[in-house]
Amino acid sequence: MTRYTAPLRDYRFALFDVLGLEAQSARLGNEADRETVEAVLEEAARFAGQVLAPLNQAGDEHGCSFDAATGEVRTPPGFREAYARFVEDGWQGLTVPAEIGGQGLPLMVDAVFKEMLDAANLSWSTYPLLSHGAIEALRHQGEDWQKQAFLTPIVEGRWTGTMCLTEPHCGTDLGLLKTRAEPQADGSYAITGTKIFISAGEHDFTENIVHLVLARLPDAPPGVKGISLFLVPKFQVGRDGAMGARNAVRCGAIEHKMGLKGSATCVINFDGAQGWLVGQPHRGLQGMFIMMNSARLGVGVQGLGLMERATQNALAYARERLQMRALGGPKLPEKPADPIIVHPDVRRMLLTNKALTEGARLLAAYAFAQLDEHERGTDADGRARGEALAGFLTPIVKGCLTEWAVECTYNAIQVYGGHGYIREHGIEQFARDARITTLYEGTTQIQANDLVGRKLLQLKGAGLRLFLAEIERFCADHASDATLAEFVAPLGEAAADWATLTQEVVTRAGTDPEEIGAAAVDYLFCSGYVALGYWWARAVAALRGGDQPEAFRSAKLETARFYYGRILPRRLAHAAAIRSGAGTLMRLDAAAFDA
Amino acid sequence: MTRYTAPLRDYRFALFDVLGLEAQSARLGNEADRETVEAVLEEAARFAGQVLAPLNQAGDEHGCSFDAATGEVRTPPGFREAYARFVEDGWQGLTVPAEIGGQGLPLMVDAVFKEMLDAANLSWSTYPLLSHGAIEALRHQGEDWQKQAFLTPIVEGRWTGTMCLTEPHCGTDLGLLKTRAEPQADGSYAITGTKIFISAGEHDFTENIVHLVLARLPDAPPGVKGISLFLVPKFQVGRDGAMGARNAVRCGAIEHKMGLKGSATCVINFDGAQGWLVGQPHRGLQGMFIMMNSARLGVGVQGLGLMERATQNALAYARERLQMRALGGPKLPEKPADPIIVHPDVRRMLLTNKALTEGARLLAAYAFAQLDEHERGTDADGRARGEALAGFLTPIVKGCLTEWAVECTYNAIQVYGGHGYIREHGIEQFARDARITTLYEGTTQIQANDLVGRKLLQLKGAGLRLFLAEIERFCADHASDATLAEFVAPLGEAAADWATLTQEVVTRAGTDPEEIGAAAVDYLFCSGYVALGYWWARAVAALRGGDQPEAFRSAKLETARFYYGRILPRRLAHAAAIRSGAGTLMRLDAAAFDA
Repeated sequence: MTRYTAPLRDYRFALFDVLGLEAQSARLGNEADRETVEAVLEEAARFAGQVLAPLNQAGDEHGCSFDAATGEVRTPPGFREAYARFVEDGWQGLTVPAEIGGQGLPLMVDAVFKEMLDAANLSWSTYPLLSHGAIEALRHQGEDWQKQAFLTPIVEGRWTGTMCLTEPHCGTDLGLLKTRAEPQADGSYAITGTKIFISAGEHDFTENIVHLVLARLPDAPPGVKGISLFLVPKFQVGRDGAMGARNAVRCGAIEHKMGLKGSATCVINFDGAQGWLVGQPHRGLQGMFIMMNSARLGVGVQGLGLMERATQNALAYARERLQMRALGGPKLPEKPADPIIVHPDVRRMLLTNKALTEGARLLAAYAFAQLDEHERGTDADGRARGEALAGFLTPIVKGCLTEWAVECTYNAIQVYGGHGYIREHGIEQFARDARITTLYEGTTQIQANDLVGRKLLQLKGAGLRLFLAEIERFCADHASDATLAEFVAPLGEAAADWATLTQEVVTRAGTDPEEIGAAAVDYLFCSGYVALGYWWARAVAALRGGDQPEAFRSAKLETARFYYGRILPRRLAHAAAIRSGAGTLMRLDAAAFDA
Repeated sequence: MTRYTAPLRDYRFALFDVLGLEAQSARLGNEADRETVEAVLEEAARFAGQVLAPLNQAGDEHGCSFDAATGEVRTPPGFREAYARFVEDGWQGLTVPAEIGGQGLPLMVDAVFKEMLDAANLSWSTYPLLSHGAIEALRHQGEDWQKQAFLTPIVEGRWTGTMCLTEPHCGTDLGLLKTRAEPQADGSYAITGTKIFISAGEHDFTENIVHLVLARLPDAPPGVKGISLFLVPKFQVGRDGAMGARNAVRCGAIEHKMGLKGSATCVINFDGAQGWLVGQPHRGLQGMFIMMNSARLGVGVQGLGLMERATQNALAYARERLQMRALGGPKLPEKPADPIIVHPDVRRMLLTNKALTEGARLLAAYAFAQLDEHERGTDADGRARGEALAGFLTPIVKGCLTEWAVECTYNAIQVYGGHGYIREHGIEQFARDARITTLYEGTTQIQANDLVGRKLLQLKGAGLRLFLAEIERFCADHASDATLAEFVAPLGEAAADWATLTQEVVTRAGTDPEEIGAAAVDYLFCSGYVALGYWWARAVAALRGGDQPEAFRSAKLETARFYYGRILPRRLAHAAAIRSGAGTLMRLDAAAFDA
């Protein structure tokens, strides 16, 4: 049985001491004060630790089961009851604006709230996660009656939402999709087609499930410019919000997966199902991007949750497991051997996990904070700034945090040694669960192409410039600060090289578009490592004002030093790879790979 | 269903064109000529591809089953029959010396032979693998009657061997082991204790299983200097070789694991079982190291096998899957989209896999070739040189090839996108199977400590000096070779920095032993990347003499360029981490990690 305790002290440090949540809330007119936020986090920590976490391993063992005769899915033991509790306690609406029935807490809080749910039970947490995308799409693009009929029950958690994008022949390339929508006399559409990989596409949590489906109208132009977005509920819903007949939507199968077994990944068949257009015809991609950006940040946080939980367990094991003596002589001579946390490389793995996890937490919360700025800002400039930063950071959060989750869950197994490979210890589950996060909601490759192709080139690097300016300001502000000198100098250098590298990529892409894809993933990692360098320096700077215990302060300082000494230099390898150019990737003929 | 075809052309290139197997065989008096070796490899490729590979996925689905009432293990469907065929065809003795009943082929051939078995079906291949260690231990340390009674049936494959080292409280730290051996009147010993994680500890392949067991004699000094090695067969064996009564050895359980499910990982209980001392009392570690070095190179090759198979499947998928258009414009305008192999980052992943796999193949075969030099060399200097090189390369082969297997199987899933996460495609199995290889037979951490602590410090870097001299000679020989200039210059630089780094680590370790462990894993990777740089340069140099098709030659050249441009620079990050010193790992108090 693995453990999980939400790291509340680090959450408080991140939100209040480093990111200044109080000042932001005051500025944006959010009424939630520090006391309220802390109380909410403590309550959420109890829910995550006591209700969700104990169901995690059994969820992996049992998985979901599918009844082909009825098309119904049964979720693992306890999942349904935990969801009922979640709804009863009103968690679904935590950061949803009050005007549509939520509690309106800052989205920055959502970053740590979601982290807790994901750490406690990633499979379970996929069910409410997808509702969030549906809420966003409906909120921004739904007609009034749609908002009334669909939004309220989803915000309350009585119904859940899904995102139906992928088809067997198209994942990334949505321009290829074939699902059709035929206009009906009553203003609805008959939706026909098959969607795959639909997370939470069918389950036993709620009385209704609202699918948000991409499909083509009869007059749709080919490609992505002919895609429209539809609401297709499992049970039909009238304009008055009343639930009606079973709709012609049915789960055809659930996938057997490497991990995330408690989450139902469904094939959903639409057989002339009644659907309702959301937004403009042929403009469905817009609504999809609203859902997807939300989901992408959410998946980044999934990675973070797994990093935290894997690390907690690896740390506990490293303190308990006695094996060999410290290289400098016995630390616990009265015991038969020393705990393995004395060994340098066990520490290297634990510190890697700690540095990535706590750094990633700041990065993620900061990205969510930009959504607050964007959505709730009081002036247009601030809103635009928030939008640019959130857009720039989204692929970095999604791409890097999920890749780091793979690394940290790998390290956790490695700390356990052979025991980490045995299922009953529950550690290998984290690695299997983590493995989906670099794939769904756009692979790491897609995130990287979004970062370089869209955020740097199409949007001319607006978000990067803002972020770099923030780093430069921080470096300038602390230029003569002796305590921070060990961080400020290498951070300044790393940021400057990042800027130069960006310029090189942009320039080369001007003559050869392949340079975008050739640089993309290494550029994504470079960005992530420099960004975490900034957040670790900020963390050290924030220690000054806080009232944390000495052990917490020294842990932050030493972890920052570890990060700068042993993780930040990874950017050198990535930069060199980028600078080798597209030729190293593109010259070899596709037929000659296995010549 | 995944595919597997042994890469015979690359094997021929590696063994004959790059590594000069013919010249080595002539020098060492090995009679196997090129024609024989090629015929053997072709036959092995058929066995691996047609008999073993088709059983791999079903083996994962079914796993092994255990009957608690009888203590018997049933292996997955077809495994037993495949083993019977393996024995019938005489494969177990392929590279075993003729004087003990083998066919005496060069051990260099074993590197590619084992790779084929492992690629085809890693779980299945763990059964014969462990016999190899038993053969080595008996051959070097067994008494004559033991050799006659036990060695012959193991070489013939009629019995299999195991290595019983680990106990619940001790894996790495064998000094803690508790299993006892009581001398009996007939010269045998009564063995009592529990061993865990015993691969192939029980199965339905053979009529007998020979356990090689570490245990303590009653007068044993504490720690590793009080460990002795015993032969403990499942069925008692008399000095005349006749099989007798069932011995008091019993499988108590099999583990449920992340992967490698077709391989029975057993708890083995010894309850006063009859055993025979192998080698000197209290000197069992010697015999164990003989077994373990053989097993470690074998596990490195397991990594290689998975790299090859994962890459073959990822490549096939990348050519078939149509998704998005090439950044420079459509490549297959007549199709709805281009195959994903046109995308730069898909190529980056495939080329990473290709570069690591083919480079690792040369490194592994070269390490095996050093065993040939050591065992079959005609002069003492050559044998010592072979021993030093093999000893130095063993932790690099085991450590790096298994870590690269984790990376390459990761990449294969990533190329498949979400489909890679679905079990039926068979790709995620490779990643789960690979995950054991960095753990068993000594974790990556243990390999790294062996490399730095033993091979560099205790043995004063003899193997490294030989290997560096070989690289320097290669660079000098090709100093004015215009075709190789793009490789020789950076290789010389990388090797020189590796030498400098080594000196720095050795110097620092002189005043602080923690520096050994603090440098170890990063030093292991540095070594692996420089070594592969050498082998890629050697591969390009070897193209000159060969008669390979043009596509093969250009693939080698471009892959070498890719390696130098995008993989070799990883050493920079590892070197920087090492140079940050032990302080970044050791300063933080163990209690403060989660303060």
